[in-house]
Amino acid sequence: MVVIGNEILSGKVTDTNSPYLARHLRGLGVELARVNVIPDEIDTIAAVVAEYAEAFDVVFTSGGVGPTHDDVTLDGVARAFGVELVEDPGLRASMERIVGDRPDPAFLKMAQVPQGAELVEGGNPAFPTVVKENVYVLPGIPEIFQSKVEGLSERFRSEPYHLRTVLVSQHETSIAKYLDATLAEYPDLLLGSYPKLSNPEYKVRLTLESKDEKYVDRALDDLVSRMPEGFVVRVER
Amino acid sequence: MVVIGNEILSGKVTDTNSPYLARHLRGLGVELARVNVIPDEIDTIAAVVAEYAEAFDVVFTSGGVGPTHDDVTLDGVARAFGVELVEDPGLRASMERIVGDRPDPAFLKMAQVPQGAELVEGGNPAFPTVVKENVYVLPGIPEIFQSKVEGLSERFRSEPYHLRTVLVSQHETSIAKYLDATLAEYPDLLLGSYPKLSNPEYKVRLTLESKDEKYVDRALDDLVSRMPEGFVVRVER
Repeated sequence: MVVIGNEILSGKVTDTNSPYLARHLRGLGVELARVNVIPDEIDTIAAVVAEYAEAFDVVFTSGGVGPTHDDVTLDGVARAFGVELVEDPGLRASMERIVGDRPDPAFLKMAQVPQGAELVEGGNPAFPTVVKENVYVLPGIPEIFQSKVEGLSERFRSEPYHLRTVLVSQHETSIAKYLDATLAEYPDLLLGSYPKLSNPEYKVRLTLESKDEKYVDRALDDLVSRMPEGFVVRVER
Repeated sequence: MVVIGNEILSGKVTDTNSPYLARHLRGLGVELARVNVIPDEIDTIAAVVAEYAEAFDVVFTSGGVGPTHDDVTLDGVARAFGVELVEDPGLRASMERIVGDRPDPAFLKMAQVPQGAELVEGGNPAFPTVVKENVYVLPGIPEIFQSKVEGLSERFRSEPYHLRTVLVSQHETSIAKYLDATLAEYPDLLLGSYPKLSNPEYKVRLTLESKDEKYVDRALDDLVSRMPEGFVVRVER
């Protein structure tokens, strides 16, 4: 995911789209590999989008889509693929239905897409999503971002992750060796260890995950059986 | 800023350290150029830290510091600079004061630093911050992250930004041309345009910023004078 916006880097706005996308993709069984927050600069957008489009299966961008000077995401995506922005006749016709047949340049800007882009329906019905190769260009406004992601979800659904959680009464330093031992037996386990300061119920939350449900349950049994009596506060399945 | 943590990419935890750092640095007059959220993988950490340490003045990392298997940030920072992790005698002595003179390997892991790292006091007094070249390695736990950033602030303070805000009653498409005209006169102005859906008071929030207070005030006068009567709801200084 590439989040585009000076307002986020300058602390004026807190990005809620990347936490939303992280949770939503995880629910679809999709691994989110990177989130990069970058400024409204065409060259920077082009460089990061080109790098990620090559390295990953799918890229989502958030923000920088609109009629004003700081909306340069589509310019950046076009440059990433070495193509020009061109007017899409369908988008132009939509604009004209809204504002008449002599639209202001600010409206015409929103009818421009990178050459060869596909327009995908789904989510907010008024505007399709611009997709160039494997790059999905989404708007920054959270309500519309979420609506579009939901509308596109079935394109990305994969095998689900199975999550088990273990709450532990001891500090990480006391349990690290048990985690290492379980990982030695179950090297493909996705195992996270998260200390919680000043939580009255537990000190560390462990998360065990796999796309193979039997594997994660065997690893869970292994880990719980290694820990001394009283260490495990609760197991959540 | 490099945020390290599978828990963030998998949507289990929402990162609050990057919004905090963005606001805090802005208050110090410091520009935040990138936030990259990456997984707990030594090679990925090494590649991103090496790239950012070269490209930017200062790099902050958040997370991946601790005693367990998924705490690999210092390994990644060491690899970014082509050095080994070595035990710091001062940190080892601190550990021994806490847990006795035969500490568990999990404690000893936390006494390891990249060769040539500096230990900087400030913030949470129990542990200094590991600094390797221009890379500040901070823990992911928000309370400690914030305490350390506050303790280190005076190292980074710069000329302040001067911010003016204009709330506008019209959509972005109706004001884009005035923004462009003001930017043509004031090319160094940092000008942001942020639509707000379903806000009863205004439709767009414009932010004007500069480190030169007179410049931002002249640009503000220019922009307000261009807009038709009734467009400006309120100016905030």
